[in-house]
Order: sequence, then C-alpha cells, then structure tokens
Amino acid sequence: MTQALDLQVMGKLAKDSARELLKTSTEHKNAVIQTIASLLRRHETDILLANQADLVAAQAAGLSEAMLDRLRLDSGRLEAIAREAENVARLADPVGQEIDERMLPGGLRLRRRRVPIGVLGVIYEARPNVTVDVACLALKSGNAVILRGGKETLQSNRVLVQVLQEALLAHQLPEACIQLIESPDRALVGELLRLDQYVDMIIPRGGAGLHQFCRENATIPVITGGIGVCHLYADAFLDLDGAVDVIHNAKVQRPTVCNALDTLLVHHSVAPDLLPMLAESLAPVPVEIRADVQAYPYFEQAGYPRLNKATHEDFGTEFLDLILSVRIVEDLDEALDHIASHSSGHSDGILTLKGDHAERFLNEVDSAVVYLNASTRFTDGAQFGLGAEVAVSTQKLHARGPMALEGLTTYKWLFEGKWSVRP
Amino acid sequence: MTQALDLQVMGKLAKDSARELLKTSTEHKNAVIQTIASLLRRHETDILLANQADLVAAQAAGLSEAMLDRLRLDSGRLEAIAREAENVARLADPVGQEIDERMLPGGLRLRRRRVPIGVLGVIYEARPNVTVDVACLALKSGNAVILRGGKETLQSNRVLVQVLQEALLAHQLPEACIQLIESPDRALVGELLRLDQYVDMIIPRGGAGLHQFCRENATIPVITGGIGVCHLYADAFLDLDGAVDVIHNAKVQRPTVCNALDTLLVHHSVAPDLLPMLAESLAPVPVEIRADVQAYPYFEQAGYPRLNKATHEDFGTEFLDLILSVRIVEDLDEALDHIASHSSGHSDGILTLKGDHAERFLNEVDSAVVYLNASTRFTDGAQFGLGAEVAVSTQKLHARGPMALEGLTTYKWLFEGKWSVRP
Repeated sequence: MTQALDLQVMGKLAKDSARELLKTSTEHKNAVIQTIASLLRRHETDILLANQADLVAAQAAGLSEAMLDRLRLDSGRLEAIAREAENVARLADPVGQEIDERMLPGGLRLRRRRVPIGVLGVIYEARPNVTVDVACLALKSGNAVILRGGKETLQSNRVLVQVLQEALLAHQLPEACIQLIESPDRALVGELLRLDQYVDMIIPRGGAGLHQFCRENATIPVITGGIGVCHLYADAFLDLDGAVDVIHNAKVQRPTVCNALDTLLVHHSVAPDLLPMLAESLAPVPVEIRADVQAYPYFEQAGYPRLNKATHEDFGTEFLDLILSVRIVEDLDEALDHIASHSSGHSDGILTLKGDHAERFLNEVDSAVVYLNASTRFTDGAQFGLGAEVAVSTQKLHARGPMALEGLTTYKWLFEGKWSVRP
Repeated sequence: MTQALDLQVMGKLAKDSARELLKTSTEHKNAVIQTIASLLRRHETDILLANQADLVAAQAAGLSEAMLDRLRLDSGRLEAIAREAENVARLADPVGQEIDERMLPGGLRLRRRRVPIGVLGVIYEARPNVTVDVACLALKSGNAVILRGGKETLQSNRVLVQVLQEALLAHQLPEACIQLIESPDRALVGELLRLDQYVDMIIPRGGAGLHQFCRENATIPVITGGIGVCHLYADAFLDLDGAVDVIHNAKVQRPTVCNALDTLLVHHSVAPDLLPMLAESLAPVPVEIRADVQAYPYFEQAGYPRLNKATHEDFGTEFLDLILSVRIVEDLDEALDHIASHSSGHSDGILTLKGDHAERFLNEVDSAVVYLNASTRFTDGAQFGLGAEVAVSTQKLHARGPMALEGLTTYKWLFEGKWSVRP
C-alpha cells in the first residue's frame, strides 16, 4: 500500500515536472546536460565506489560474467557515458518544430507543433549506462522520466540519479524530472505499467520476457522491440563475393545483438556456387551451421567443422550467438512466405542484382527495416544518422525501427481563429 | 474453445489478406470501394430488411430512443453511407509515400516509405454506418480489418459485410480483408484484444467504458480517445461579442459530442462584463449553468433560469448535455493549472487579444488540439481538411487528435546498399 502510494506521488511529481519542461528552452536543457557530463567526471570516485558495491553483491549472487560485464563501470566507461551526454546536448531539439501548417476557409490557421510526450517510464536491466543515456534523451526532448533499473545496479543508479538531480537543481529545474524507483519490489513494475493517470509511454529495455510482460500488463502504450529474428535471402542473381561478405558481416560482426543474422534463405540455383564459398568464409570463425535437408550436403561436402541438421525450431529463432540456420528455397515467393511466417519484423534483406526482385522484396516484406544488398547490422540509430537511439521498435505504432529523439515527441494541433464558430 | 480457435483462424486469414493488400494498387483499391457504393444501393432492400429485424429486436429489448436512432437505417441514410464510401475512394492514398530520403556515407540510400499498419481490430457499438465507414478506410489504407459491432446491429452488419465481401471478390481480393465477429459472446472482445500474433492495432469506437476496457485488457496498441472534458478560458482582454459567440457555439451547437464545451474559466476582471452578456445568450436555449461561488452572483443577478451552484464534480466532467460549469480565476496561471488538472487532453482554448497570453496558452496546454479565439467544436477530421476521420485520439502515441487515413499507416525503412557491410 505504502509503495503504491509512493508511486502515485512520483507520478504526480513527474507530471508536474513535465509541465515545467514545456517552458524550458533548448539552451536551458542543453546546459543541464552539459552539467551532467561535468558532474559525472567530478563524482567519478563516488560512482565507481557504488558500482564496486553492486559488483561485489552481484558476484556473491552468482551473476554470469556477461551480466557482470554489463554492470561494470570504470574510468573509461564513465568518460564514454559523459561524452555520450555531451553528444545528446549537440543534437537538434525536435521540440517546437512545426510539422505542417494550413489555412482553412475563414482565415483559420491550423498548425501541428512537435511537443514532448510528457512522462516516460523506462524499465531496464542491470546496465548503469542506460540510466544516464535515457535520462539525457528524455531531458533533451522535454520529457520527465521515471526509471526502474535492475536491482543488481541499485547502488550505482542511486549515485547516478543523485548526479542527474544535482544538475537539474543547479539549473533551477525540479529534480523530479528524473526519478528512480529504488525499491527492488517487483510488484512496483506492475504498478508503473498501470500508472496511466501520469505516465504516457513505457519503454522496456531488455529481453523478450520483459517486453512480453510489459505488453501484457500495461495500460499505457508500450514501445516493444529489440527482438530480431533476421533473414537474408540470396537470390538467383548475385555478386557472389559481395553476398558472402554481407552474410559474413551480418552473422559474425556482433552476433549477440538483435540485428545479427539468424537465417539465410538461398535460391536453389545459386546454392552450388554460393554455399561452398560461404562455408569457406564461416568455417574459420567458426559459425555453427544448422542446414535444412537440401543445404546440408553442400556444407558436408566442404567438410564444414560445425554442421548440424536444422530442426523446425531453428527457423524463427533469435540465436544471439554464432549460429546460422540455412534453408534452400525454390524462388522469391517461397522466400517471402518464409519471412512472413518466421520474421520478428526487425531487419530482413535481399541480396540480388535483379531490380524487379529487389522492388518486390522491399515492398512486400513487412519489417521495420528492409535491406537490399547490405548487412542487417546497419539497423541502429547512429548508423542511420539519427543520433542516439532510445530503442529499436518492432511494433508498428508511433515509431518503427531505430527510435531516436523524435520518437520521444508527439504533436499537438494549434488552431487559431478569429472569434470563429462552427456553422 | 471453439470460438477462441475461430478467432485464431480469423486472425491468420486477416494477416494473409493484409499481405495481398500490400500488392494492391491505389486504382484497384478505389475500384473495390466504388463497387461497395454500387452494391450498397443495389442491395438496399436486403439491408433495410435486416436493419428492420435489428430494430424490432432492439425495441423489444427496450433500447433507448437515442440508441434506436443510431441503429436505424433508411434509404436516405444508406445513400449517405454510399456517398461517404465514394468520398473515401477520392481521398489521396497515403500508402507508398516516401517520407524522407537520405544518402549515407558509402553510397548507401536510406528511405522511409509509408505502409499499411497490417490488421486492424475495430470494436464499436450499435451503429451500422461505422461498419462501412471503417471498412472503406481500412481498405483504402491497405489494411485488413476485423470488426466487432454491437450485438443489437448483428443482422444489419451481417448483410453489410456480405456486401463488402462481395465487392472484394468481384475485384479478386480475399474476402477476409474485411471480417466480422458474429458471435455475441463478450469474451470474444477480450480474445480479440489479446490476438497480438495477428492484430496490429485496436480502435475502439464508443464510450469511456469501452476505451477503458480496451486499454486495460489489450496486449495490442490501442488508439484511445473520444472523451472530451473541454475548457475555454476567457482572458482579461477580449472581444466581448466574439467571446460570447464562441462560448455559445462551443456549448450549444451540438452538445452531445466529445468536443462540446464543458467548463468555462473566466478572468475575474472581465466577469462583470462578460457573464451578464453570456447569461443573455444562453438563457433562451436554455443551458444549465453550474457556477462556482464567485460566478454565481452574476447569473443570479441576471435572473438566469437554470442556475445551480457548482460542486467539485462539475469540474473535470464531460456533460454531453446542455450543462456548463463556470469558474472565475485570478489569472492565466490559475486557468492553466485548472486545465492541467481537469482536462482530458482533447480540446481546450483561450479567448484573448493578448499575443503573449495566447502564446503561453498554446505552448503550455498539453491537449490534442489547443484553440485561440475559436470554438472547440472544430475538432473534427473533415473540419481540419483531413478527410474522413477514423477516431479522435486523446492518447499521445502514433496519432493525436483527429485521426484520418494517414493514422492507419506506419512506415518502414528501406536501406539500399552496394554489398555493404558494417565496419
């Protein structure tokens, strides 16, 4: 009961703070973000000590080395976080942009102006860098934010949020622009997801389970995403060397992330040329190949070191690992059908020299990003020239694909009349 | 169990149909909509007979005259529905528009193209016109749709959807582009709201209860809206005649709809001049006035015929009736505070001759439509020059305010490389 009340109070404070941010100029917001960067450097000792306490507890609790690595801060990583804040200060402010303007009969003027969403709820795992990144992006776009980080990172987050709030106060802004839910009580996540009286948007940053939980329990719009079952289709008409390079890059360059390649579809006529070359390229890594019955012999014949027969489950699975499922298809239509039924709608591409095949693929594949002759690894706010990325959305409303500052805004209609009445 | 399975099948069919619509040209979609209009006229007798059956059952069930009126079709109303379909055929097709294009280093081309959402779920009350309106808008924007109308209109909807499907088949499109949930089982609404495997967006068309139910039970993004607690603030600097005209229009022109005025806030210095004039204007209607303790004497002195003291509940209430609550405020800040805590974020306006007050109000009021010197009754897709309106959104994601065809689309990113890999 007390905790629910606290969250109500936090929500109300956040909403009031959002009203203050509406009146805050771009220069003012940038000054706060610059101060955040300075204070992160000045408070380095406090931050690293708190982080050390988190790490000790996390090791005692038996967290995996991968999780410990994400939790860990050091001098270099803290400097990178401060620089990222400075980058956000340099980005263009989307707030206040007028999207369109029209004059209506009777001299009425109608405009749409870009405005902050209001209050964001961000739920994430044990990554202290997200605390600062998200807070700076929220602030830059004029939004108040309520943060709920993983409990393993609580000591770090407490100190980081103190730094963020110190910067707000130094510039006469309410510290409740950035608030942290400190209690480890998991029920509070459910409460936050239903705080629709105050919170306008929920952004989960984490695995499939977290996204699912948010979608099922929120009464507030949720930006879901981050799950990528990614496909490349190698068409009959190819630059073979180029195709091998792209497939290799999409699978190997960073296999643990959502835009890494999971499934390769190959036109049957190109398989005899492409697959031996691909085997040669992927064997030294080595990537584990899970091949369907038609593709298997090509890899077997090449003496491929990590080869398995694909099962039904190997298609439509996000591996997040050096594993690639391979299937041979009859034609473009079969590839399109496979993608329609197995893709998560994140990033899918075609490799082809035929313009009409490219156009059909770009038109008919219903994914956030559709590629022609390029690696799926490009799906990223920075690569797209959008600046810092808040999330990669695989749902279709509001923002799709890499979601940057603009995705943290909405618009309102401004209607100026001359003492005008509707007939 | 069977019903849940049926809904799964409908969802799958809808998703497959949406893939077909992706390949369908604007001309092809328009031809279907034209055929819908023709068939509505040709099948007038069948449609009106089915509607008659609905009306008889609804009368026997004791529905209110207002509900019977919304349910009722006649020759003139059916012709209006057919003409509205023809209007939709004439609207510009948002699908395929390229929103922006940028060249990235290395000759990479990045575009955003507007595409259909996919599958819409529309839940509405006993209004058979909505069946055709929504189906035509969905079709025009390339979306498949699953309709769930009020059970009182089932006979009418069955015949209407047969007509819609006949038009689809006549143009070689799958009839599952437009499907109707026929069973009156209310549990199916809950099932539809969780059919996230197939349905991309839920649009409720009805009262506050339906919107709330959808928000609380959906795992799919919901466009909520339609609830308008609307305010006008009469500032100290006014054209008094103009202000009275605007207030009268906002309250009286159509009091039963969401953009009608609910609360008037009046700067204390203008009350002695404005309120007697307003009393004279609203008394003949008559509008019931619920005045706060400061405003009450002005109406009392004018011998106002339907005058009551406002209670706490009269502020923040959507009346949908000839009732107006009136409060006197000290200044613009008090008006802004009142609106921030009582508005539903639909339509709120200021009446003023002072430019800086207008600019503060337009900037700081966080509603879908913010007015200057105009009636709140303008919040409407047609009035805004957007064409037919699907909904009026009071949530902030995706679409805000009057939501037309463009609101039924999303975008995808198209990334064209030259066998490009991420470094």
